[in-house]
Parts: sequence; C-alpha cells; structure tokens
Amino acid sequence: MASGQFYLSCLVLGSLGSMCILFTVYWMQYWRGGFAWDGSIHMFNWHPVLMVSGMVVLYGAASLVYRLPQSWVGPKLPWKLLHAALHLMAFILTVVGLVAVFQFHSHSNIAHLYSLHSWLGITTVILFACQWSLGFAIFLLPWASLWLRSLLKPIHVFFGAAILCLSVASVISGINEKLFFSLKNATKPYASLPSEAVFANCTGLLVVAFGLLVLYVLLASSWKRPEPGILTDRQPLLHDGE
Amino acid sequence: MASGQFYLSCLVLGSLGSMCILFTVYWMQYWRGGFAWDGSIHMFNWHPVLMVSGMVVLYGAASLVYRLPQSWVGPKLPWKLLHAALHLMAFILTVVGLVAVFQFHSHSNIAHLYSLHSWLGITTVILFACQWSLGFAIFLLPWASLWLRSLLKPIHVFFGAAILCLSVASVISGINEKLFFSLKNATKPYASLPSEAVFANCTGLLVVAFGLLVLYVLLASSWKRPEPGILTDRQPLLHDGE
Repeated sequence: MASGQFYLSCLVLGSLGSMCILFTVYWMQYWRGGFAWDGSIHMFNWHPVLMVSGMVVLYGAASLVYRLPQSWVGPKLPWKLLHAALHLMAFILTVVGLVAVFQFHSHSNIAHLYSLHSWLGITTVILFACQWSLGFAIFLLPWASLWLRSLLKPIHVFFGAAILCLSVASVISGINEKLFFSLKNATKPYASLPSEAVFANCTGLLVVAFGLLVLYVLLASSWKRPEPGILTDRQPLLHDGE
Repeated sequence: MASGQFYLSCLVLGSLGSMCILFTVYWMQYWRGGFAWDGSIHMFNWHPVLMVSGMVVLYGAASLVYRLPQSWVGPKLPWKLLHAALHLMAFILTVVGLVAVFQFHSHSNIAHLYSLHSWLGITTVILFACQWSLGFAIFLLPWASLWLRSLLKPIHVFFGAAILCLSVASVISGINEKLFFSLKNATKPYASLPSEAVFANCTGLLVVAFGLLVLYVLLASSWKRPEPGILTDRQPLLHDGE
C-alpha cells in the first residue's frame, strides 16, 4: 500500500488523538473547575486527562512504531528502544493519573477501588505493567532465545491490542460514571443532556474512534515490517473468517 | 495446533459464556426482583440479560464458526449459513433487549439515549446491523465478485472483532451505571461494596474475560480455515510487531 495512505492515516490518528486530549482538558477546565495538585476535586481532574493521554493516545502511538515505513528496513533495535520508551512514558502518565485519583479519594474520605470502572481500570494497568516488563525482558534484553521470542511474540502483540481495548472500555465507563456524579442536581441532570453531557459523550466516542483506528492500523493494515522467511507477511493480518 | 487444544478452548469459552449469562440472570433475579414484560423495572431486567446473551456470548460464538476444524474442509456454504444464522439470532436477542429498556423508559417517563453507555451501545447495534446486512449481501448472496469479496473480507473481519470490543465496553459501562442507580441508599451504597456490587463487578470481569478469549481465538490463534493460494494462512494472524 502506498506510504502516502499510511501518512494520511497518521494525520487522522494524530488529529483524533489530539482531539481526545484537548476535549478532555477542555471538559475539566471549562465545566469542572480546572486543575490543582492538592487532594481536592481539582486534583481528580488530572485523572481523566492523564488516563486518556497515557493509556489511550500515547499507548496507541507507541504501539504503532513498527508500522512506520522507516522501521521496515535497517536495524530493528532503535525501533524497539523507541517502542519501549514511548510505552514507558505512557505508563508513567498512567501512574501519575492513578496517584491523582487515589490522593483525591484519600483526602475526601472516599472509598478506593469499588466500582467496576476502577476494577477494570486497575486490571488494565496491572496487565500493562506485566506486558511492559515481560516485553523488556524478552524482546529488548539480549538473553532470550529466538525460540522463546517467536513463541511469545503473538501473545505480546495480542495483549498489546487487548490492553488498548480494555483502556478504552475503562475510559468509557469512567466518563459515564463521572457524568452521573457531576450532573445530578435538578437544574441540569445528565438525562436532560446539558452541553457538558453532550461534550463529554462526544469525547468518549472520539476515544472509541481513535482506539478503533489504532487497532485497524495495528492488526488489519498491510503496513508491517517484513519478517525474514515469511513471504506473505505484508498480507493483512486479518485475512480470514468471512 | 492440536485440535484437542482447540476443544479445550471451546470448553473454557462455553463455561465462561454460560457463567456470563447465568451470573447476569442471577443478579437480576436475586437482587433486582426478577423478570416481567410490563414496562416496569422488572421489564428493564431483561435488558442486561439479553445484551450479554446476544451481543457478547452468542455473537462471540457465531464469530468463531470458521475456527471449528470441521469447517476447514469441504464446502464453505453451510458454515457461512451457520455464521449468518447465529449472528441473526444474536441480533434478534439484541433488539428484544433494546425493546425492554426503551419500553421501561417510556413507561416510567425516563429520557432515552442520554448516557455515554447508551450512545456507545446504540452505535454498536447500528454497526452490527450494517455488518450483518453487508456480510449477507456480499459474502452469502452469490452476486458479488471475488475481487469485491477479497477487498471487503479483511474489513468484515476487523469490524466483526471491533463490534465485539464495543459490545464489551457497552456492557461494562452499563453494569457500572446500573450499580450506581441501584445502590444509592445509605444502608448499602456501591462504595461500601455490598455483596450485589461484588457479584455484579465480577460479572463484568467475566464478560471481559470471555470477550478477550474470543478475540484471541479469532485473531491470534492458528485454528483457521486454510485459504486457497495463501501458504502461511495457518500462521497466527497476530504474527508481527514485537
């Protein structure tokens, strides 16, 4: 496929990803009172921004490193380093985003980790930590055998995509939950769809659109680094099951 | 891969899928007052049961028809018919599940389609309707050319998996929302994790586990019908991007 189409997809992905972050920042700034780091509800506001930025947008971008045509030729190590470094940055943003919500809960005497959103979210972050550590130990450090790498690679790729799906599901349930918490007074209940609700619902759908486009480029597109010895590796991965 | 392992996966999938449905039925029966078809809250209780049964469990089973070793040889048409028929049954369950929630809303003067859960859910159902209709017209009716089929097949497979992801995200946000609605009195708030909350949160994680296992068998396993002319078709689909 022409690399022009690839860069067009990158443009769409970049625009969608930026909109996801900007919409979340605007929602928190305009309707939820902005940001602070003091244990208050304004500290909580960092949570959605950092989770969308880290667990969805930067995670998605980091996953797509091997789809860049420049990565198809030459040594793979620099691209592995970039892949690992971007995912580490995504993980750091995620951890800071967790600190924001845990400190807000502690400061306001709110129970931690009771909702399904939080159970799914924390499971996703733990899976991400395992995925990064195992990926680092097996694919970046030089000790693992080729046999072990080729055994674990499809599992690593599958869990990479699965963690993105779980992140998007966590974000959707989180936005839904936040709107039920915030829009409960009689003048502007969530059910009357005030402008904040419409805006935040659209933000959720943007996150879903970004996630689906990342998964498409990752799993179904033909933009892949050719593997030695696999002739049809440039074939789309999802080439079955009509 | 040995077909014994495939049937072991089927056993795990069948157990997980049955547990997803049984847990949802038990939740609605034991804690939410059971079922009726009269516009009351007991009519709403069909909604989670039918969405989990239709959009997740039966949809997942229908997606995996071409992974059965029996489908790898002989004519493909009977398997296409089974694939389309099971998906149609899943769609019918889904529509009845939507009728249950819409009639409950109308009967109780509750606004329709305001939450992000409902926006994502209805988007997923519309995508499912488009996917089924296009799949029927292109892959089951005999008019489409081979060129058109091979062009659309990766897109059909991708959207098949994507719709399952969106269904799981809708179910998670729906369970979360339902628990915030139901567990809001002072004696057993959601935040105190009463037994209902623990049970329903676990149901949500079971749905996630079922969805991930379906996606693994669909996308990353080597149990696939060999395509004529593609030598490496038995290779795992997710064979890239370490």
